[in-house]
Amino acid sequence: MANFELIKRLSRKTDSKILFIVIDGLGDLPHPDHGNKSPLENAQIPNLDNLAAKGSCGLTIPVALGITPGSGPAHLSLFGYDPLEYEIGRGVLSALGIGTELRESDVAARVNFCTVDKDGNITDRRAGRIPTEVCAQRCSELSRIEIPGVEMLLGPEMEYRASLVMRGKGLGGRVSDTDPQILGVKPLKAKGSDSESERTAAIVNELTEKAGKALGGHDKANMILLRGFDQYRKLPSMQDVYKLNPACIATYPMYKGVTKLLGMKALDAGETIESEFETLKKRYNDFDFFYLHIKKTDSAGEDGDFIKKVHVLEEFDKNLGALEGLNFSVAVVCGDHSTPCVLKSHSWHPVPFILSSSNERPDDVRRFTERECAKGVFGTFPAKEAMTLVLAAAGKLNKFGA
Amino acid sequence: MANFELIKRLSRKTDSKILFIVIDGLGDLPHPDHGNKSPLENAQIPNLDNLAAKGSCGLTIPVALGITPGSGPAHLSLFGYDPLEYEIGRGVLSALGIGTELRESDVAARVNFCTVDKDGNITDRRAGRIPTEVCAQRCSELSRIEIPGVEMLLGPEMEYRASLVMRGKGLGGRVSDTDPQILGVKPLKAKGSDSESERTAAIVNELTEKAGKALGGHDKANMILLRGFDQYRKLPSMQDVYKLNPACIATYPMYKGVTKLLGMKALDAGETIESEFETLKKRYNDFDFFYLHIKKTDSAGEDGDFIKKVHVLEEFDKNLGALEGLNFSVAVVCGDHSTPCVLKSHSWHPVPFILSSSNERPDDVRRFTERECAKGVFGTFPAKEAMTLVLAAAGKLNKFGA
Repeated sequence: MANFELIKRLSRKTDSKILFIVIDGLGDLPHPDHGNKSPLENAQIPNLDNLAAKGSCGLTIPVALGITPGSGPAHLSLFGYDPLEYEIGRGVLSALGIGTELRESDVAARVNFCTVDKDGNITDRRAGRIPTEVCAQRCSELSRIEIPGVEMLLGPEMEYRASLVMRGKGLGGRVSDTDPQILGVKPLKAKGSDSESERTAAIVNELTEKAGKALGGHDKANMILLRGFDQYRKLPSMQDVYKLNPACIATYPMYKGVTKLLGMKALDAGETIESEFETLKKRYNDFDFFYLHIKKTDSAGEDGDFIKKVHVLEEFDKNLGALEGLNFSVAVVCGDHSTPCVLKSHSWHPVPFILSSSNERPDDVRRFTERECAKGVFGTFPAKEAMTLVLAAAGKLNKFGA
Repeated sequence: MANFELIKRLSRKTDSKILFIVIDGLGDLPHPDHGNKSPLENAQIPNLDNLAAKGSCGLTIPVALGITPGSGPAHLSLFGYDPLEYEIGRGVLSALGIGTELRESDVAARVNFCTVDKDGNITDRRAGRIPTEVCAQRCSELSRIEIPGVEMLLGPEMEYRASLVMRGKGLGGRVSDTDPQILGVKPLKAKGSDSESERTAAIVNELTEKAGKALGGHDKANMILLRGFDQYRKLPSMQDVYKLNPACIATYPMYKGVTKLLGMKALDAGETIESEFETLKKRYNDFDFFYLHIKKTDSAGEDGDFIKKVHVLEEFDKNLGALEGLNFSVAVVCGDHSTPCVLKSHSWHPVPFILSSSNERPDDVRRFTERECAKGVFGTFPAKEAMTLVLAAAGKLNKFGA
């Protein structure tokens, strides 16, 4: 719905509990080497099929027809936040991705370590894809740089990529990239488009100059390029809008970070699907909304590893037995976006969705697959409307108007 | 569509006639005690099935996925008025509900008769649910109160509930409730949030004080609580936007009131489904749009009375024979919202819809049920778009652009 004013007016606190499982990159395409079937169509997933048969199904459109989302916007959408309205810059996502605790008005950017020649001109924008450990060393060398009035947090992400967070008073996020995107030239000077951002740009330029000196002794990865500046701002919380007390069960920091923006409490979930379900059981009494995230379907899709994706789905399916004895008035199994193995990347295709609740209309879907869910009672609908359906079925919305 | 600027540009007056039947609370859920079928699936409704088979079907979303509407917004939506844009306050709906003729800038509120002790503290917010006759007596006692510069209309609604309308110059509707919603305290002082509403709040406070004196001799129902203040404003009329000459055939005042807001002429419709259809026949020549409302399906749903709902549907179906000989270029049978017997309340579930017209695409729907209509040519679509489809099929819309 993403009409937060309306939902805030109508939502009410109740005792009912919601389980919201997101299988990352769930949706897929038929694969010519696997009987022209999708991973879901190949997998042995009796528990999911049963849930689909008893529940109400559909396909979700992550952002809009034809739009391929990143994980950030795709997740925001599932939790009812219109990703076009609540856009989170890459710098902030990157900082959240490595687990940085952001504060209101922090400015974050993505960092690329690059290689420059003795004149300062860029010879390799990715510094020969240095290993992540080298990236971490470079970050710690740079952490000695001091610029008055601003605290700087630098952390390695992966290979040549790192994250920069600037913290201080009067910073602005409307700062242009220093990455020229071409070789043979010097890094660009950052520019700010308002007075606070101008001041921030000056800090960025000072940092870049000092970084060049600090790293000058290295043959490669001896300079930094910055892009994707964004200022962190608080989003409406799920507590405030939905009157929920929500928890996040995820193994990857990025998902804990994004959902923390929405007010979710990140639980210690271990590193496996099994440990995630154990966490759910252990903390069942402490929250009324559980987001449980399954990561490896997406990675398998990105790698084009069809067999792996099928195995992850089957492993997940086996773990669904752990739900026995837990009482959820609504259980959802869905995905944030599709990651078709044949495309080896995220895609725009609508994503299978099950809502299981005694308050919803049953349909004729008997298998949890892309083709079957398309025939479900919800049809193909915007992911951002899912939360309203969930709250309605959980009895957490009052009537609109008399 | 609710894009009134566009529709106003495109609509044209023609001789074709439209019949628009709204079965209140039509949609339902499968009932475990009735073969896991809905009332529509259980009912013997050969005429409706025939209409569904010959016509084009779908399911309407009253306001938005997951949102449960009151009757007011649900009806506005069916007539093409976006209920989130044209919100009507409870006070105005209440006044319309008892048949009050509202004028532009009137301010209306809901009244609860309550009981206070000798110190003026509330001991019963519903005054022991006094009978409606007692409520009417109290209203007439209060009608003697005079406040200079404002006319006051007080009328009984049901039991302890009544309606207040204030008429005069310079009134405002942004007035806070005097109902504290708890016992053991005095009624709250009303406050206004702009200068006209402040003046109105002062009138409300004077009325409350005088009401306490006027009713002081009674043991119970000796004070009033006011809430849901709203100022009446005119809506765009169906004459203006659609170039229709519309009539309302309904047995309940509330529906006559709401549709009068849209420019419909309320006809004398008697009190039964049969008399409603007789009215339709009798006045067939006088209008080009007939809204015909069936109420008792909703009441049966609210009472959880499955058998009753089935009977009302069957009674309605028999009356459809009365349409023989009348020539409508478009006939619609739909509902304003669902009222599932298992929930005993309005709900958010999409509602079966038939549009019968030689200008529309037929589909494979053969039975008028929730499950079948989901497979219809219109799919699941916003109720507020229905009027545009109706006007199009009736040949009442010009082409957009060259």
